[in-house]
Amino acid sequence: MKNLIVEKRAYFDWAATALPDESVLEEKVPFANPSSLHSEGRAARAALENARERCAAILRVSAKTIYFTSGGTESNAIVLHSALVRGSTGPILVSTVEHPSIRENCRALERLGKQTGAVSVEKDGRLTPVTLTKALDKYPDVRVAALMALNNETGAVMDIEGLVRCIRARERAPVHIHSDLVQAIGKVPVSLSAWDVDSGSISAHKLGGPRGIGLLYLRKRLDTLYVGGGQERGVRPGTENTAGALALAACLERYAGPDMVLTEHAAACVRCARLINGLLAIPGTALIPTDRAATDERFSPYILQVAFRNIPGEVMVRALDDAGFAVSTGSACSSAGHERPVLAAMGLDQRTRLEGIRISQGYSTTMEEIERLLEAIQQICDLLGGIV
Amino acid sequence: MKNLIVEKRAYFDWAATALPDESVLEEKVPFANPSSLHSEGRAARAALENARERCAAILRVSAKTIYFTSGGTESNAIVLHSALVRGSTGPILVSTVEHPSIRENCRALERLGKQTGAVSVEKDGRLTPVTLTKALDKYPDVRVAALMALNNETGAVMDIEGLVRCIRARERAPVHIHSDLVQAIGKVPVSLSAWDVDSGSISAHKLGGPRGIGLLYLRKRLDTLYVGGGQERGVRPGTENTAGALALAACLERYAGPDMVLTEHAAACVRCARLINGLLAIPGTALIPTDRAATDERFSPYILQVAFRNIPGEVMVRALDDAGFAVSTGSACSSAGHERPVLAAMGLDQRTRLEGIRISQGYSTTMEEIERLLEAIQQICDLLGGIV
Repeated sequence: MKNLIVEKRAYFDWAATALPDESVLEEKVPFANPSSLHSEGRAARAALENARERCAAILRVSAKTIYFTSGGTESNAIVLHSALVRGSTGPILVSTVEHPSIRENCRALERLGKQTGAVSVEKDGRLTPVTLTKALDKYPDVRVAALMALNNETGAVMDIEGLVRCIRARERAPVHIHSDLVQAIGKVPVSLSAWDVDSGSISAHKLGGPRGIGLLYLRKRLDTLYVGGGQERGVRPGTENTAGALALAACLERYAGPDMVLTEHAAACVRCARLINGLLAIPGTALIPTDRAATDERFSPYILQVAFRNIPGEVMVRALDDAGFAVSTGSACSSAGHERPVLAAMGLDQRTRLEGIRISQGYSTTMEEIERLLEAIQQICDLLGGIV
Repeated sequence: MKNLIVEKRAYFDWAATALPDESVLEEKVPFANPSSLHSEGRAARAALENARERCAAILRVSAKTIYFTSGGTESNAIVLHSALVRGSTGPILVSTVEHPSIRENCRALERLGKQTGAVSVEKDGRLTPVTLTKALDKYPDVRVAALMALNNETGAVMDIEGLVRCIRARERAPVHIHSDLVQAIGKVPVSLSAWDVDSGSISAHKLGGPRGIGLLYLRKRLDTLYVGGGQERGVRPGTENTAGALALAACLERYAGPDMVLTEHAAACVRCARLINGLLAIPGTALIPTDRAATDERFSPYILQVAFRNIPGEVMVRALDDAGFAVSTGSACSSAGHERPVLAAMGLDQRTRLEGIRISQGYSTTMEEIERLLEAIQQICDLLGGIV
């Protein structure tokens, strides 16, 4: 019986990495070094620039604002550490629910003498003009701000456009506003120009693409810390990953075009509503935040954080794994093991933090998988709810 | 006629990137995030650690000294910029013929207040205990040294073991010795333990592997500047590139095992000797350095730098490209366009520097391709030698 279930596994950890879409790897890739002058090199250069233009077209920005990197983490690090090169003296403002690649790099910069400030979130894990204004009052000389567009642990959707407007209305000197778009892209409409951000990070593997490729959108070119052979206009050195860039372009075309985003979002909302209603029917289950509704525009339907009373998150993850379901506790990118900084920032107590698990779905998740997952959770809660 | 030749092109730019070996991509790759706790994640973790162990086995070091990165450039940057984290105060010593990812990062560190010193080379482009000792006399408090094992523009092979011994004999405090192994690996025997280096950089795409994956050997773990989700023991953040790591392991197994290196090296020596003898028979041709012999242990047979009197390197590259041959001037990774810092460091005059081209071969280069290349060069020299 158990084996039968395991053979038909269901994947609910799309926020950690999406199920791969092999078709994005099908394009022909000129093998040469795009910096070489010969025909082979020029063909590689043309392919790389074609990939850049296609990414730019989906993001509706100029191709010269797109820089290929190894992924979202590196894109975030490049922007933050560029503060060392520019010698900018004002504080770096970041939200308390950022990805570790923002949070930990800020700590690294603090150790090097840079001042950083925190923008706290509401109880629902969202940034609002109110929380942002408090931070701006405390740090009026802010020079860099990093505000993620969609939280990787709770699915909280941030109103980046409104938040940026709030910063712009008060900035004394231009503030470089960065947004981690890794979870947002393909999941909610992203409009870099309307949002008025200076930079943004995207990773291919969250969109079915390969690991090791991402991009950094930079409205204006930045001088960055890690340098080398001058590739990517000096922003990101290293022989260009042409194959990765083409795959990323294909991912964006397939999953981040405006129609696709809206259609898939609607379908995901239906699945998410069923998931939430099913979960709430199980005694001892609490959504995080508790007031998240079955249909709730504050949250992405793709990511759901939920706690089961008396069942530690790690126990639930393992029990579901045994039953054939891949879910996770918080971010896979967590250097801090058992800590849950995002949930702590929302004011949740230690017990609830340890009970939280993340269920994240993707474009190919089916309603049948949702039903099976609910059934498995019900069984585990029946079995463990009173024991653990 | 021209099209006929172009259809049968020959690739002599292996030092920029090797011809790809698709077979290194054939391994089955578990798709999940290796940091996820579920079965899929654990399978990905196992694959990643399997790749690490296989890389370590070929390099004859412990698996825990291997950290996957996006490539040689990033590996070099990680080591150099770790000086900022450690707050080490002594100078960083680097040779005058290092790859831009060493040279330019040193300049970046200088701008941040770090002291750097240069180790000059002999006329043949090689580092020797004599040139190194001069630098150590000038910078006795050196704390970091970066000495490449095989030069990417001239093929000069450095005696890393002897150079390291020279530093160790004089070090007042432990010196972190880094060696850029990107061109050396698979081309000369590399022995990290005998060489007594603290770190080394390797890139898969120089060995027929994909772009975007490399490794950093670190005898002892370093605290590094760019941080994030704690992957690769905190040395290199970002979701691990399992597919890339497996491909790199396959590359090393295929092309960097000791027997393979020696067998292929012997074959490359035969081709190189024919190439050199053929070139020297063409009037106005000068090897760089001029005293390089047809068989010469100071140089790798895979890389040859050569100048043609009165024919600028770029003109020769384009003429050969038209004739169906891909060669290059210096490094593809050159932010400085027309400058040739490596040739300048060897004391060559401006004219010779501009005339130099790099012919680099690989394991699948054939003697027939060498003969065709020689013929094409002869024709171009006949045509252009008197004109340009």
